[in-house]
Amino acid sequence: MKKIIKNGFIVNTEGVMKCDLLVEDGIISAMGVGFEDKEAVTIDASNKYVLPGPIDVHTHMDLQSGALRAVDDFYNGSIAAACGGTTTIVDHIAFGPKECTLQHQLDVYHGLADSNSVIDYSFHGVLQHVDKDILLEMEKLMKGGIPSFKAYMTYDSRLSDDELLQVMKTVKKVGGVLTVHAENHEVIEYLKRSFVEQGKTQAKYHALSRPSHTEAEAVARLIHISAMADYPNLYLVHISTEESLNEVRKAKENGAKNIFVETCIQYLMLTDDKYLLPEGEGLKYVMSPPLRKKKDCDALWKAIQDGIVQVIATDHCPFYFKDKVEYGLNDFTHCPNGGPGVEERVRVLFTEGVIKNRISIQHFVEIASCNPAKIMGLYPKKGTIQPGADADLILIDMEKSGVIKEDLLHGNAGYSLYEGYHYKGEIEMVMQRGSVIVDHGKFLGSKGDGKFINRICPNF
Amino acid sequence: MKKIIKNGFIVNTEGVMKCDLLVEDGIISAMGVGFEDKEAVTIDASNKYVLPGPIDVHTHMDLQSGALRAVDDFYNGSIAAACGGTTTIVDHIAFGPKECTLQHQLDVYHGLADSNSVIDYSFHGVLQHVDKDILLEMEKLMKGGIPSFKAYMTYDSRLSDDELLQVMKTVKKVGGVLTVHAENHEVIEYLKRSFVEQGKTQAKYHALSRPSHTEAEAVARLIHISAMADYPNLYLVHISTEESLNEVRKAKENGAKNIFVETCIQYLMLTDDKYLLPEGEGLKYVMSPPLRKKKDCDALWKAIQDGIVQVIATDHCPFYFKDKVEYGLNDFTHCPNGGPGVEERVRVLFTEGVIKNRISIQHFVEIASCNPAKIMGLYPKKGTIQPGADADLILIDMEKSGVIKEDLLHGNAGYSLYEGYHYKGEIEMVMQRGSVIVDHGKFLGSKGDGKFINRICPNF
Amino acid sequence: MKKIIKNGFIVNTEGVMKCDLLVEDGIISAMGVGFEDKEAVTIDASNKYVLPGPIDVHTHMDLQSGALRAVDDFYNGSIAAACGGTTTIVDHIAFGPKECTLQHQLDVYHGLADSNSVIDYSFHGVLQHVDKDILLEMEKLMKGGIPSFKAYMTYDSRLSDDELLQVMKTVKKVGGVLTVHAENHEVIEYLKRSFVEQGKTQAKYHALSRPSHTEAEAVARLIHISAMADYPNLYLVHISTEESLNEVRKAKENGAKNIFVETCIQYLMLTDDKYLLPEGEGLKYVMSPPLRKKKDCDALWKAIQDGIVQVIATDHCPFYFKDKVEYGLNDFTHCPNGGPGVEERVRVLFTEGVIKNRISIQHFVEIASCNPAKIMGLYPKKGTIQPGADADLILIDMEKSGVIKEDLLHGNAGYSLYEGYHYKGEIEMVMQRGSVIVDHGKFLGSKGDGKFINRICPNF
Amino acid sequence: MKKIIKNGFIVNTEGVMKCDLLVEDGIISAMGVGFEDKEAVTIDASNKYVLPGPIDVHTHMDLQSGALRAVDDFYNGSIAAACGGTTTIVDHIAFGPKECTLQHQLDVYHGLADSNSVIDYSFHGVLQHVDKDILLEMEKLMKGGIPSFKAYMTYDSRLSDDELLQVMKTVKKVGGVLTVHAENHEVIEYLKRSFVEQGKTQAKYHALSRPSHTEAEAVARLIHISAMADYPNLYLVHISTEESLNEVRKAKENGAKNIFVETCIQYLMLTDDKYLLPEGEGLKYVMSPPLRKKKDCDALWKAIQDGIVQVIATDHCPFYFKDKVEYGLNDFTHCPNGGPGVEERVRVLFTEGVIKNRISIQHFVEIASCNPAKIMGLYPKKGTIQPGADADLILIDMEKSGVIKEDLLHGNAGYSLYEGYHYKGEIEMVMQRGSVIVDHGKFLGSKGDGKFINRICPNF
Repeated sequence: MKKIIKNGFIVNTEGVMKCDLLVEDGIISAMGVGFEDKEAVTIDASNKYVLPGPIDVHTHMDLQSGALRAVDDFYNGSIAAACGGTTTIVDHIAFGPKECTLQHQLDVYHGLADSNSVIDYSFHGVLQHVDKDILLEMEKLMKGGIPSFKAYMTYDSRLSDDELLQVMKTVKKVGGVLTVHAENHEVIEYLKRSFVEQGKTQAKYHALSRPSHTEAEAVARLIHISAMADYPNLYLVHISTEESLNEVRKAKENGAKNIFVETCIQYLMLTDDKYLLPEGEGLKYVMSPPLRKKKDCDALWKAIQDGIVQVIATDHCPFYFKDKVEYGLNDFTHCPNGGPGVEERVRVLFTEGVIKNRISIQHFVEIASCNPAKIMGLYPKKGTIQPGADADLILIDMEKSGVIKEDLLHGNAGYSLYEGYHYKGEIEMVMQRGSVIVDHGKFLGSKGDGKFINRICPNF
Repeated sequence: MKKIIKNGFIVNTEGVMKCDLLVEDGIISAMGVGFEDKEAVTIDASNKYVLPGPIDVHTHMDLQSGALRAVDDFYNGSIAAACGGTTTIVDHIAFGPKECTLQHQLDVYHGLADSNSVIDYSFHGVLQHVDKDILLEMEKLMKGGIPSFKAYMTYDSRLSDDELLQVMKTVKKVGGVLTVHAENHEVIEYLKRSFVEQGKTQAKYHALSRPSHTEAEAVARLIHISAMADYPNLYLVHISTEESLNEVRKAKENGAKNIFVETCIQYLMLTDDKYLLPEGEGLKYVMSPPLRKKKDCDALWKAIQDGIVQVIATDHCPFYFKDKVEYGLNDFTHCPNGGPGVEERVRVLFTEGVIKNRISIQHFVEIASCNPAKIMGLYPKKGTIQPGADADLILIDMEKSGVIKEDLLHGNAGYSLYEGYHYKGEIEMVMQRGSVIVDHGKFLGSKGDGKFINRICPNF
Repeated sequence: MKKIIKNGFIVNTEGVMKCDLLVEDGIISAMGVGFEDKEAVTIDASNKYVLPGPIDVHTHMDLQSGALRAVDDFYNGSIAAACGGTTTIVDHIAFGPKECTLQHQLDVYHGLADSNSVIDYSFHGVLQHVDKDILLEMEKLMKGGIPSFKAYMTYDSRLSDDELLQVMKTVKKVGGVLTVHAENHEVIEYLKRSFVEQGKTQAKYHALSRPSHTEAEAVARLIHISAMADYPNLYLVHISTEESLNEVRKAKENGAKNIFVETCIQYLMLTDDKYLLPEGEGLKYVMSPPLRKKKDCDALWKAIQDGIVQVIATDHCPFYFKDKVEYGLNDFTHCPNGGPGVEERVRVLFTEGVIKNRISIQHFVEIASCNPAKIMGLYPKKGTIQPGADADLILIDMEKSGVIKEDLLHGNAGYSLYEGYHYKGEIEMVMQRGSVIVDHGKFLGSKGDGKFINRICPNF
Repeated sequence: MKKIIKNGFIVNTEGVMKCDLLVEDGIISAMGVGFEDKEAVTIDASNKYVLPGPIDVHTHMDLQSGALRAVDDFYNGSIAAACGGTTTIVDHIAFGPKECTLQHQLDVYHGLADSNSVIDYSFHGVLQHVDKDILLEMEKLMKGGIPSFKAYMTYDSRLSDDELLQVMKTVKKVGGVLTVHAENHEVIEYLKRSFVEQGKTQAKYHALSRPSHTEAEAVARLIHISAMADYPNLYLVHISTEESLNEVRKAKENGAKNIFVETCIQYLMLTDDKYLLPEGEGLKYVMSPPLRKKKDCDALWKAIQDGIVQVIATDHCPFYFKDKVEYGLNDFTHCPNGGPGVEERVRVLFTEGVIKNRISIQHFVEIASCNPAKIMGLYPKKGTIQPGADADLILIDMEKSGVIKEDLLHGNAGYSLYEGYHYKGEIEMVMQRGSVIVDHGKFLGSKGDGKFINRICPNF
């Protein structure tokens, strides 16, 4: 079945052009001027902006975390993503049993996602120990469709510095991407212990136990290790502080290469005064890294503008507020970490970035669609509007505005970190591989319509 | 008449895609997969790279310079450009009579170019004095198709610092571009005088009379003046030295905006040891600024890589070698300044940049086509491959190579600065607005086929 | 006659030591522990800080400036200096008749100072045109006791860029110091003209006609010219803005050498809101460069702390308030430029620096005494407490405080820029070459007691 | 007994003065001009430079290291120091039994040093575990004469990041100094294991197992931890690489404070090609960190010049060459780490620094005497020539030169890393507290003459 999307402003990273799109078999088969075809369904995009489908490369659907499980699974979570304008996710999967293979957890997640997700998806491999078998398995997976892996510098399954070095050398060899959660484990654990010993257990101590320098230190450490592996593709997830950005900027000035920085929409918007909200409300914002200061938000925007930050994701990992309170009210260290965001990201980022003139609309496409696709090996199938690409598209009406309200959202958490936020730039339509899956806010897709995407090693 | 360009690798600044182009009425009317049309002429671009037509925004065709006139006029000069793969030029026109209007010189140049140029063209307005009338005329021209102007900080018609400030404020108001030749006049004149007084009149003293700091000083001065005009679009022509780049980089770190840097292909390739060539040969390289050191070439490449330099042009301004010798052999200060390059630029830059892995092919498109078009107000008509754009294209065969020989070139100078240079990446075809004007090196266009392009103020 | 100064805290740039000083024949003949000598007068300095006599290397005594003359001559001006704790001045002398020799003005100033000054003094040579004779005379003077010269980049007798280059090469050859008033003449003149044309003639337009970038531009230009002369000793007088400091810092990072920066006490303290004072009061602060913003004060303090600024002077150049008003009230461009400060400098700087913990007391000695002495060729005769040095000393009582009131001062201007300022750290005694010339505020010296000091080229 | 040192050029950090010194009871009691005293012994220092006694704050006398013991004890090691012109050492003492108190090891070292050392000495406390008792003991020791402690980031008794944080907070509270050996333990251990597994056991793999980034990473980490403790005095021992210096410089630009950097003479002079010497000769240079590249030597000199490096020490820790070979020839990981240097430091540094015009003689005094004294709490008793200071002095004859030969040295190692080095600037005399302990190379002191020095917390 053919579709023609007529008269839209097509946005790619180079600029904005007014032209028509012809979609056949889920693929953009042509872009041009004055397309007419009686057999085709025509979608009028006049005065709308047509963007390549946004991609969220940092979600945690159905994540088991301690005693609790993230409350969005691949079905409802992907509906939330779709309704928020996101057409592909790459999920950071959970740790498995001690010493399990990498494939083990990928298999588990295929089980969770394959017949559930309504949008296309992939997984980052997750590293929880390192030995020769794991390194060999990494090589195999990178060549076989999973080019990216996640390592943690904190939490029980963190890697040691030498393990990180080994993993980086392997990534360098094949050409994949190592994504890393960078925080200094020892200092954070000490600070947590100290606060608890002193009876300082409220939400605000969550932030104080993870000061900015615990993140920046880990970033500096990673970059030095990366240098020793001759700069494999290194992707820093959820960077939240000015000090970390200083490390990246300085390293690049001194010749460091292939460093990619992700931040999440909450770190651009929200600040640590949220932790002071009464009645446990502050616990909603307990995530790691924590919310920071206004100066950090400003530094992140500046780093987007000058290209130090390339990707905006969500770290979507929702829990019920009641569970946050039950576990965390008496001791922040037991509060489940994470919050929802996959449905809010596009609207909030568009408003804060494009509408507020911090970035151009083509720069929005870079950080929300194209860069995630390129870095994670989805490009040019995803992340761009060009002949041959998947017809993953969103139509935005710049003139329409709205308010984020939890009861209009599709996630299960029961709250939004952006409740009451006024956005401008409404997502009129979401198309995945040529099918309209959201139309004026109404979800039209079906369970299991999403496909697992084999990714390829990026080429920089 | 329709044309289909099939199976090429289409390059834009975002990446490379394999698709077909449909060209109708000189315009790219569609891009897509599997185009077939019996009415269309099909051009097989299999295994070829299809790039938006390169643009040279710094030429001096038919320039009167003192007693001499640049030896390429708009006819043969544009043939040389076309054969070298350049489909549009924006010419830096000559000074006119004292106190003449801006329009006066534009009229003169329409007379020189309009029925002669074989490729599309425009002119930068030239500033030779500043008063209220000139400032008003600038506004009118910027709104009427000439958004860019040239000012000189050296030579007889140089502007003073306060005149530069006035001009910049006017540019800021309307949104045009000020291009500037930045060199410290007083120091250079003093050094020239000193050398001549000491009998130091050989070509090498040309370089020594214009040391790196004379350029970098002028760049720093301009940027400070620009700051006082709230950063209008400022375009630094033919930047040649590391010290100048340091000024730009430092200024940007301190918040300066809207600074664009052009260098020319010769400054990336050739060094000042050329001035030591015997028998007047060194005079071939007498141009201003002069050739510099290896460290400057390296700094320019690095600045291209990190985005400080956005445009590579030529400053094409050829004179006969015999005139260079006649005027300059006994005194470098009388040697006509300038050299040919419009035909060599694309091949040499492609080889040095893409083939030698300094930049990607999409980055080549940025600096040779897209950025010049965007900055000078030609985009998206020129400088990109997208539906609606002019079908100005070149096809490059990456596997073919060749050698630059003067007798194969179309300029009148009679020599090339790159004689004997081995390039890789042959330009198989050059198309302007849908017409093949060069095919395998053979010029197929006609005198006067080039059109004057009304440009628009750029939008950053 | 011998004196023993007992039990003071002796401050030099290395630190603070408790010891006694023996003074003989005006010279510090010994420093030690437990000095006793019945023939000597003993001065008890217990709990006092003994500092090398502060030096003000930027005064304008008896300066003819247009129709007016600075109202402190070498007699009363030097009394003011002495009472403010300054034991040596190096005066920036006035321009002489067109094309006069350098010696001409030095002779004039010997006439003004020699039998008048109550403290030791020297002169900076003043450059008002450049030719071969002047360059030769500079060499002679540098070797003969006047190693420093002043050049202006603005005002009628400014030097052109090539003249600056010639002068710098001469300074480099002999090893002297070029001091420069750095401001962009053309832009300032244009802005002044523009404001006056628009009827914007109040004091605040004085500041607006000399924006920060007019100073920073000139600084950048000077440093580039200096680079072409292989970095002679270059001393930037009265630097007032963050942007200028950025230029110096950046240049040093890129390898520039021998750049010395002076600021004046007013630029550390006072801001341009003073120009808004009613009833002509703002005119008191009309000086060039003008007072700046708080951010500039902060940047200057930071630059003192990190060693970019080495000297704090005054640019003491007082006029009667009534003349300021008479000439300037209707047109700031006619207001005589300059203000008093030579008597206030030490107390204000000590309070702002040492008492407010911005710098250590030994750092105070560096910027108020030792650095000026070293840079201007007075060291180790002046600027230090060591055997063999002149016994130019001040005793400070850290615990005593006071208020600056014009009627306690000795200058003729009739007002202080610091009226009502509460200082801490009282100057108990001022000694010049072993004579107590000020004791608890009472001037004890005699007209003509000051000696002209032959200076030597500094050695860095 | 009195001594007068006549007519020398006395060097302190401010400059050079010609004056006499009077020494009474081991103290400099006076400095002055024309001292005569018949009761005093007069030492003619005409044409000699008199410097405050150099201090080596990084030695390892009598250190037990694994199965071996450093071969210089406090007796012969201090003779070597004295003969090399060093008048005070602060020793980095060995680890004691597991979980021992800090005092335990200090007591052990008093036992080793007290009746043996011929020059004055002190000890850095050594941290080998951290708990509340240790932190309390640190406070007590800092207030009681041991203001500095050593922590290791590698080796078995290394501290974890949170332990470093706790220690730093304690240092901040009292005002002492934390010295740290900064290297990344995990990466180094991994690289060592890997090389050995691959049979790469030669000396050169010692350097390759400790790449520059292992040091720079640890430096970055420390500084971030330091920031979290509000910048206590942090002293980085034996910094050896450009990358580490970049970290310090960048941190200071971003506001970090109280960071002090030591390097050792070998890192300024020797490069890693030494490890390629045949027949085990390379093992002589096995120390940690290892010798680096020429670029690192250059960066260290530049960092001395711009004040990033404040102290030059030795890390003197000699072993017999035969033991180096016996343990290390088949496996570099078993080679005892360290080499001699305490006797060579002053002559080599003077030659490389002052004679080769890299630094002034007063800058030499800063890095060899005054800064170590100030930072380690010995000033103004040591590290300066001023009334009241200990008469610890060396006399240097600038015109005399010599060659370093092992058989003229006093250490036990049996070899010098600088064998055959031609130095200029001979140490004519070494005086400790007024006693001549070395005269023209002849040691005149006595066992046990050295005193333990109670140090005080430095005050910056």
